[in-house]
Amino acid sequence: MSGPVYDRVALIGLGLIASSMFWAIRKAGLAREVVGTARSAETRETAREIGLCDRVTDTVAEAVEGADLVVLAVPVGAMGAVAEAMAPRLAPGATVTDVGSVKRAVVEAVGPHIPEGVHFIPGHPLAGTEHSGPRSGFATLFDNRWCLLVPEPGTEPEAVARLRALWEGMGAHVEEMDADHHDLVLAVTSHAPHLIAYTMVGVADDLRRVTDSEVIKYSAAGFRDFTRIAASDPTMWRDVFLTNKDATLEILGRFTEELFALQRAIRTGDGEMLHAYFTRTRAIRRGIIEAGQDTDAPDFGRVKTGA
Amino acid sequence: MSGPVYDRVALIGLGLIASSMFWAIRKAGLAREVVGTARSAETRETAREIGLCDRVTDTVAEAVEGADLVVLAVPVGAMGAVAEAMAPRLAPGATVTDVGSVKRAVVEAVGPHIPEGVHFIPGHPLAGTEHSGPRSGFATLFDNRWCLLVPEPGTEPEAVARLRALWEGMGAHVEEMDADHHDLVLAVTSHAPHLIAYTMVGVADDLRRVTDSEVIKYSAAGFRDFTRIAASDPTMWRDVFLTNKDATLEILGRFTEELFALQRAIRTGDGEMLHAYFTRTRAIRRGIIEAGQDTDAPDFGRVKTGA
Ligand SMILES: NC(=O)c1ccc[n+]([C@@H]2O[C@H](COP(=O)([O-])OP(=O)(O)OC[C@H]3O[C@@H](n4cnc5c(N)ncnc54)[C@H](OP(=O)(O)O)[C@@H]3O)[C@@H](O)[C@H]2O)c1
Ligand SMILES: NC(=O)c1ccc[n+]([C@@H]2O[C@H](COP(=O)([O-])OP(=O)(O)OC[C@H]3O[C@@H](n4cnc5c(N)ncnc54)[C@H](OP(=O)(O)O)[C@@H]3O)[C@@H](O)[C@H]2O)c1
Repeated sequence: MSGPVYDRVALIGLGLIASSMFWAIRKAGLAREVVGTARSAETRETAREIGLCDRVTDTVAEAVEGADLVVLAVPVGAMGAVAEAMAPRLAPGATVTDVGSVKRAVVEAVGPHIPEGVHFIPGHPLAGTEHSGPRSGFATLFDNRWCLLVPEPGTEPEAVARLRALWEGMGAHVEEMDADHHDLVLAVTSHAPHLIAYTMVGVADDLRRVTDSEVIKYSAAGFRDFTRIAASDPTMWRDVFLTNKDATLEILGRFTEELFALQRAIRTGDGEMLHAYFTRTRAIRRGIIEAGQDTDAPDFGRVKTGA
Repeated sequence: MSGPVYDRVALIGLGLIASSMFWAIRKAGLAREVVGTARSAETRETAREIGLCDRVTDTVAEAVEGADLVVLAVPVGAMGAVAEAMAPRLAPGATVTDVGSVKRAVVEAVGPHIPEGVHFIPGHPLAGTEHSGPRSGFATLFDNRWCLLVPEPGTEPEAVARLRALWEGMGAHVEEMDADHHDLVLAVTSHAPHLIAYTMVGVADDLRRVTDSEVIKYSAAGFRDFTRIAASDPTMWRDVFLTNKDATLEILGRFTEELFALQRAIRTGDGEMLHAYFTRTRAIRRGIIEAGQDTDAPDFGRVKTGA
């Protein structure tokens, strides 16, 4: 690293993503000072206790004062109100970004509040865990993960390059795309899979003839992977589905169609169709391993717990 | 361990499960001799090359000669034909078991071939990876995993106890249940989740507006876990769905119903319903971690690949 990329970074919201950003920024020396704030006194107290941020302020307005980068790291549905609260205090020439999982809705909710002379570059790091809150972050969360930036056409290239340098300094690979394309790509790779996992776990929880304790005991055969996804934060995911409605519903529609075709093949005993389908889906897996986005370790890559 | 549980074990089929059994049996000294055979000359050759089994025979009939335990470790749809081929050579007092992922269909396909005086105790270890073949096995596959035995009423208790001792010696926990209940439990915890994962990966592969390379690059946000499941062996899974048709279709029917309810909530903007649903599904996850069937490590428990 060649010194700080920003002078003062303000983190608005101090959950998993913001706290991971703080530890990563500090580790790599990417900012001279990091100021943070969160909605609840409890989270701000925790942050002060564990040394999360160089300074924790009680209000959003104080936090953004004099910051050359402001990061909105709250649920997507809360971004508009937060942007409105901070807008009058933004420093001229500052950059505002966010880490929300949906982009078109953030552009529409935050964009109108950004004053003339402030850069707005929405972003989304594709990294997370099923944990949340100020204690859940860690410096390596973004290592070898993608961060997507969706600047509007006409955004100043130097401002984008600087934000890119921050993410790269935290270990991420950066790519730019259009907000709508982002929302469609994420609907396929993240939002629809999450809804499907939530659904499957809900079904298992609701069956009369198989007990919850059986589901839990015998989960290692596939179901376990779904429960991990379906343990993610309910508020974050409610907001994702409500704000990426169209793309998510489009993918779920396609999913239901395919599922019906496979169900019909099972019902009619069409083994050839099933075999061909299951062969085709293996190729994508190989691509993911080759791209370094997962390991090829056996037993679903899990660390074994002692017998 | 207190010495061998069986004198001679015959493994029919030498894929992931059988090869893992061999390494686990050898490590714990659970049999005096392990004989193996597989359908293809190629697999038998590989087995001889890597020292998989004390002896590899060219035919099933030779393999079962004088064995006091015979393990059928071939795809579910192949069990009946294999049972028919070996039946005349089974030693009186021997036990025949299997490791198939479906149980009622195996009982029906194999049961009629088992001669008087031979014990038949179907089984299913809930452990696997997405790899297959004679080189994919390892001794710890069954560590801390469940193995379900589904003996018919009236099976000699000593024969069941001995088979149980073998699985416990390989590190597994053993539970007994009825074949139909097994098939329903597995439809929920494994078969339906696999079909759903295959479907989601198929949809992603088939979209025109998102390229495969984008899906692969940005898979870490949830989709990746589906691709791992959907990389499992096509023949094995074709047979599972064709032979556990009723229970799988029942669960998929329930799944579709729930998915429609969630889709409707997204469409109508019912955030309360979504939040309540996503909160309920977290509890099962906690149960799985407490039961030691997964770890609570961040980032989906994956080992990070270097940046
Ligand atoms: N988790 C992931 O896997 C992941 C991955 C990529 C992007 N994201 C995105 O990152 C953002 C933050 O997620 P996270 O996982 O860091 O969440 P988190 O751990 O749950 O933290 C959320 C933070 O936002 C604050 N907050 C919640 N509701 C608010 C409201 N109505 N007004 C103001 N502040 C509010 C919380 O304050 P209190 O602590 O005071 O309640 C908390 O500090 C979300 O937009 C999410 O879509 C998440
Ligand atoms: N993999 C899992 O996750 C898992 C978990 C629990 C239970 N199971 C069950 O365990 C059994 C074996 O699975 P596996 O994963 O060990 O499979 P695998 O690695 O693909 O090996 C299958 C073995 O069966 C042989 N075989 C295939 N078709 C055959 C046929 N028509 N007639 C005779 N032999 C045939 C193969 O012989 P060649 O090598 O000569 O082709 C190979 O030796 C299946 O019933 C499966 O349902 C699997």
